[in-house]
Amino acid sequence: MRTLTVDLGDRSYPIYIGAGIRKQKSLFADAIKGKQVMIVTNETIAPLYLDDMVALLSSDYQVDTCILADGEKYKTLDTYGQIMTSLLEAKHNRTTTIIALGGGVIGDMAGYAAATYQRGVDFIQVPTTLLSQVDSSVGGKTGVNHPLGKNMIGAFYQPQAVVIDTDSLKTLPMKELSAGMAEVIKYGLICDKPFFEWLENEIEALMSLDAERITESIYKSCEAKAKVVALDEREGGIRAILNLGHTFGHAIETEMGYGAWLHGEAVAAGMVLAVDLSCRMGNVSSEELVRTVNLLKAANLPVLPPQNMTKDAFLSRMILDKKVLDGNLRLVLLESLGDAITTSDFPEDYFNACLEDALEASRLN
Amino acid sequence: MRTLTVDLGDRSYPIYIGAGIRKQKSLFADAIKGKQVMIVTNETIAPLYLDDMVALLSSDYQVDTCILADGEKYKTLDTYGQIMTSLLEAKHNRTTTIIALGGGVIGDMAGYAAATYQRGVDFIQVPTTLLSQVDSSVGGKTGVNHPLGKNMIGAFYQPQAVVIDTDSLKTLPMKELSAGMAEVIKYGLICDKPFFEWLENEIEALMSLDAERITESIYKSCEAKAKVVALDEREGGIRAILNLGHTFGHAIETEMGYGAWLHGEAVAAGMVLAVDLSCRMGNVSSEELVRTVNLLKAANLPVLPPQNMTKDAFLSRMILDKKVLDGNLRLVLLESLGDAITTSDFPEDYFNACLEDALEASRLN
Repeated sequence: MRTLTVDLGDRSYPIYIGAGIRKQKSLFADAIKGKQVMIVTNETIAPLYLDDMVALLSSDYQVDTCILADGEKYKTLDTYGQIMTSLLEAKHNRTTTIIALGGGVIGDMAGYAAATYQRGVDFIQVPTTLLSQVDSSVGGKTGVNHPLGKNMIGAFYQPQAVVIDTDSLKTLPMKELSAGMAEVIKYGLICDKPFFEWLENEIEALMSLDAERITESIYKSCEAKAKVVALDEREGGIRAILNLGHTFGHAIETEMGYGAWLHGEAVAAGMVLAVDLSCRMGNVSSEELVRTVNLLKAANLPVLPPQNMTKDAFLSRMILDKKVLDGNLRLVLLESLGDAITTSDFPEDYFNACLEDALEASRLN
Repeated sequence: MRTLTVDLGDRSYPIYIGAGIRKQKSLFADAIKGKQVMIVTNETIAPLYLDDMVALLSSDYQVDTCILADGEKYKTLDTYGQIMTSLLEAKHNRTTTIIALGGGVIGDMAGYAAATYQRGVDFIQVPTTLLSQVDSSVGGKTGVNHPLGKNMIGAFYQPQAVVIDTDSLKTLPMKELSAGMAEVIKYGLICDKPFFEWLENEIEALMSLDAERITESIYKSCEAKAKVVALDEREGGIRAILNLGHTFGHAIETEMGYGAWLHGEAVAAGMVLAVDLSCRMGNVSSEELVRTVNLLKAANLPVLPPQNMTKDAFLSRMILDKKVLDGNLRLVLLESLGDAITTSDFPEDYFNACLEDALEASRLN
């Protein structure tokens, strides 16, 4: 098992990474302060892992469960209300601990419930997908979607601990493994060129879930994210670089309808657009753009936007993105491979050409 | 105009108190950082003050409004969702400022919307009732009710500024002025004996809205609350003394159905129970108990629980209260007049006798 600490002063917390560690009671006991535990999970994960977790904890705590429908389309205020009702019906008080057992949707919703139940209770993340392990379980972003925009409702709220059991990837569909790998590759692109090169060498082993390399890639990803988050907990500045490809990606996700494209798939296509724009601006070489595309392809990820997407659709969706400051579109771009910045200073014609060329390539593909 | 600063490090903010100050543009301009403003108010307040405020700000900002139904029964997740929809429909971004124009319900909901819209935007409180001026606009408690419990969903979140216009009390129903006065009297009881004595002398002038004395009583109340909140922003300890009478009061409010008893009325009856228990424990004299009852009566407040309330109803409602720690009932009691503590160390038979005697007196009343 490897352990990493996210350094946020009195909100610091440990991330544990290893095979089979969801059965290590002490990791939970160290983080639970009260006598009550509410495990929030979904209908897909419950049959796989819920019984084990209830059995692990029920001798020491009042353990209740809240099993939600599975899928991004249920990441709503209504489902969040269901968690609140479960907590109140089982008479959980302020000293309760919520355990989020599942992927990013469960983590975001259970975290938001923890942030706002009786104005804030403790929670522990047990992310079961690669995406949630390397992204949404680190950094304290919690929330739900609104019909008019993704992640528009939420709070910054830190967990007491994150328990990442790499064994849970064995039950993950390949498509979702790829989607998670998009975020792993992102860390190489934005802040760690040696890690990017390591990924180029190890991508086959990673896609076959080689235990040691998977643990290493999650550790490096969490470490990269933890470093950025520690510098900027509430996303005033540098933290925005974590959104490489996401402004384009959110536009794809929203336009196609939540769930049609996986988040990581949309981010992969979005990252290619961002690296392409960085390339046209002379910040990265054509060879580096090709290497980026090849690495994403090796992870079975899309590198072009959807065929039926238009430039206008991109533009109107991107205007409402949280990264827009007073109508001025800001993007995360690369200054060089392994070094990202957030800027609204990019030539508009390059930006348009990137979108047009990619959409054209997608239609021809 | 008087100005008070709530000292919370980088979340410090000013409270302005004075007659007619809702028309002072500079107070708002100093607190608004972006170009968008969303005024959240209700159907009762809108006809009185909304046009003035829109006129004041619309030359400098994009001003949108969200007018909600009036009343505690609308303090729900659904109504909160309506604020979110208004913000998204008018394309408000992260630099928007929400202005809460109304009483405690509007302040709590608009504040919760501000805490969670795009994970947090700025807000300004313009409380229009005495209760919200002396209580809910100071301290950062925001949230909504759940059918199973009051204020069970919410966040701690501080405003950029609070603008208290004492002129707005002229349009306030007398019953609500009394309810607000319950909280003013509370500050004397829990932490300021000289203020309690000043209130005994000035209660008639206050109830007739003498401008100078009203400003003084609001200033002293906000100052008292600000001091306590500064010591304990997230309610780990001392802040709980602000809840004198509230555990009993919440039980009354919930049992009678939200809105049947005003919050301040329920708190008044609850404070008498708490002071009575403190008296039986020998902490305050019988004469001080009588003075407390007389001061509340002079403010036209109830000093006994509802006739149709039972001891069992009190007990079962109090168990779910947020101040219950692991099943151990904690109450705010007085160590002496002007000095409160939170404790679970009180004789159970005294506690029972207080409730029984008060309920008996209420039935005979």
